[in-house]
Amino acid sequence: MDEAAERHNAKMKKIKAARDRMMADKTDEKGLIVVHTGKGKGKSSSAFGMVMRCVGWGIPAAVVQFVKGDWETGEKRVIEERFPEVRLFVAGEGFTWETQDRDRDIAAARRGWDIAKEQIRDTRNGFVLLDEINIALRYDYLDIDEVVTFLLEEKPPMTHVVLTGRNAKPELIEAADLVTEMDLVKHPFRDGIKAQKGVEF
Amino acid sequence: MDEAAERHNAKMKKIKAARDRMMADKTDEKGLIVVHTGKGKGKSSSAFGMVMRCVGWGIPAAVVQFVKGDWETGEKRVIEERFPEVRLFVAGEGFTWETQDRDRDIAAARRGWDIAKEQIRDTRNGFVLLDEINIALRYDYLDIDEVVTFLLEEKPPMTHVVLTGRNAKPELIEAADLVTEMDLVKHPFRDGIKAQKGVEF
Repeated sequence: MDEAAERHNAKMKKIKAARDRMMADKTDEKGLIVVHTGKGKGKSSSAFGMVMRCVGWGIPAAVVQFVKGDWETGEKRVIEERFPEVRLFVAGEGFTWETQDRDRDIAAARRGWDIAKEQIRDTRNGFVLLDEINIALRYDYLDIDEVVTFLLEEKPPMTHVVLTGRNAKPELIEAADLVTEMDLVKHPFRDGIKAQKGVEF
Repeated sequence: MDEAAERHNAKMKKIKAARDRMMADKTDEKGLIVVHTGKGKGKSSSAFGMVMRCVGWGIPAAVVQFVKGDWETGEKRVIEERFPEVRLFVAGEGFTWETQDRDRDIAAARRGWDIAKEQIRDTRNGFVLLDEINIALRYDYLDIDEVVTFLLEEKPPMTHVVLTGRNAKPELIEAADLVTEMDLVKHPFRDGIKAQKGVEF
């Protein structure tokens, strides 16, 4: 086994140990670390569906958008207009393929993560969505070890945290309680159909 | 090839031909037939996230719930209290494992499908969600050919229809524009944690 693989295994083992410690303290109801990943649709929209459920049950929720820019999305509008009790923070402004400015993207990701930590620590929240944080983790704009350690050691026991985006890192999957991979079976773009309001954004 | 396989292939070919006819009439923007299936989480919640987007964009939407019973779910409450413009119909009352009454389940599924057809035909709707209809199709409470033929031949061109539930039939996948399979990578129930408000329902 080469050095990198050894390091990786040691790291995963450490995450597993931290996770086991966390689980040992738990009764049968607890706040979950939930990951939505994969190339298919529905990673963010199902997380927003969960926000909708929280509103229905009166569970205080916060959303930190790491990637979606300052353009209006359907979700943002609904949260602002219909769910005034949900705290919404937009950290990423365009990001990477729009800004082409790595330093600015890293600053936006760090800003998002600072807000995320604050919202997760705030025990008034029962649910915190970190939308598209996996993109920031993938490009190492945020440190995966820092994020995983925080989730396992500082997340209040009853708070659900949902992390979305493609290419979830193995460390995050190891730390999570519930991981869903959205796979694309069939997609209309291959037939030349444009992305559309309501369905795609 | 045995007779059943031949029949299956002929049927799939017919669906493909109907789909090709439908696509031939389309410009590059059209209402999609969307399927969310698989054993993972997020099939219904991402569809409800799409309902939320529609509300954000002012797209009139209707929801027909084929399985969820008369118990209160977070989504139902939010639709009733925050999204008065969304038409919500609950067709299934408990269903199968609750009612243990096949005739009653079939009647509920038929009632749901009649409402579904009416809502899809109503061109004021831009989005119609048939939540958990795949369960009714799987048990043959509804005829798959009737559903697929209706979608391909009678759905107004600009209306999106989303069909959710495990075990989507191959005929439906063939007819659909966009299919996402939600796969379960990791699930907390194996660790003895209960289903929880907000995350699971």
